[in-house]
Amino acid sequence: MRITVDLPHAYRLINHGPVTLVSSAHGGATNVMAASWAMPLDFDPPKVAVVIDANAYTRQLIETSGEFALNIPCRAIAANVLKAGSASGKDLDKFAHAGLTPFPARVIGAPLVEGCVAWLECRVLPRPDNQQRHDLFLAEVVAAQADDRAFRDGRWLFDDENLRTLHYFGGGSFAVTGSQFEVNGDNT
Amino acid sequence: MRITVDLPHAYRLINHGPVTLVSSAHGGATNVMAASWAMPLDFDPPKVAVVIDANAYTRQLIETSGEFALNIPCRAIAANVLKAGSASGKDLDKFAHAGLTPFPARVIGAPLVEGCVAWLECRVLPRPDNQQRHDLFLAEVVAAQADDRAFRDGRWLFDDENLRTLHYFGGGSFAVTGSQFEVNGDNT
Repeated sequence: MRITVDLPHAYRLINHGPVTLVSSAHGGATNVMAASWAMPLDFDPPKVAVVIDANAYTRQLIETSGEFALNIPCRAIAANVLKAGSASGKDLDKFAHAGLTPFPARVIGAPLVEGCVAWLECRVLPRPDNQQRHDLFLAEVVAAQADDRAFRDGRWLFDDENLRTLHYFGGGSFAVTGSQFEVNGDNT
Repeated sequence: MRITVDLPHAYRLINHGPVTLVSSAHGGATNVMAASWAMPLDFDPPKVAVVIDANAYTRQLIETSGEFALNIPCRAIAANVLKAGSASGKDLDKFAHAGLTPFPARVIGAPLVEGCVAWLECRVLPRPDNQQRHDLFLAEVVAAQADDRAFRDGRWLFDDENLRTLHYFGGGSFAVTGSQFEVNGDNT
């Protein structure tokens, strides 16, 4: 079940550095691309930073709409993530190509991606110098949801291997997020 | 053994979103802090983006020296990483507090951290608006090394559990990077 994530907890959805799917829309067109270069930028209001290549079709949709979503995929859809990272939405329907299904966001116009385990809806903070020189987009998170089998009460649960988030090394090589462990800082 | 990582491969050291230790130095003072909000920004020349809180002692050292290193810690030193994230270098010798040992970098003045599995030496790209509004530092990677038990020929090897990199959830809770797997994009 998809549950609302309180905005001050939204950074926890990407604090551990997972792969993201960036979804976008403008004027009836939609797209989805894989992005590993994304991170939290602030807690409350939550902000994120993400790198979107100048040649990506997603880039046009984000620059015209001023919105995007970060969808956090899991082990079960790793092959779809790779496909979403391996063709341009300029040339084909990327959702169909990657075998991914969109569903409506709560606040923004861009669709969200079914089968992911968390979703952050974002509005771009205009920083033209970052965008032009570094392909770097800063954005405020305006809504967040999670699959309650994977994230509940502000914490990730990785009991189900198929629902674990992903980390990308390049060349089609991923890892899942490993098992959680606690340290108390006293064993130095 | 520490080996040189070719600069065009340096982004691979942090592409999967691991926790970092940010080390810095200026005028005889050194410091080290934990940072999860770091990501690659460009391939070649390699660049990185990292968030450094305005109240961090590290921030003063980076702003005056224009340099820092991203050290990539592993499972074996997770408790030290937590300690490095839980006190201010203003008040104590953070290396000693965290049980971490510095060693000289190759290019920059900031020290590197023993026991980590990769090291990126960075020079700040002056972006005052990002630094002041968002605590966001962009930097060019000018040298990179790795422990060849963990990263070799441009690829991470996670055979040894103790040498696996870390992902941070907050509240003292980490995960190691899980086992790698390949997908071919055809099983959608």
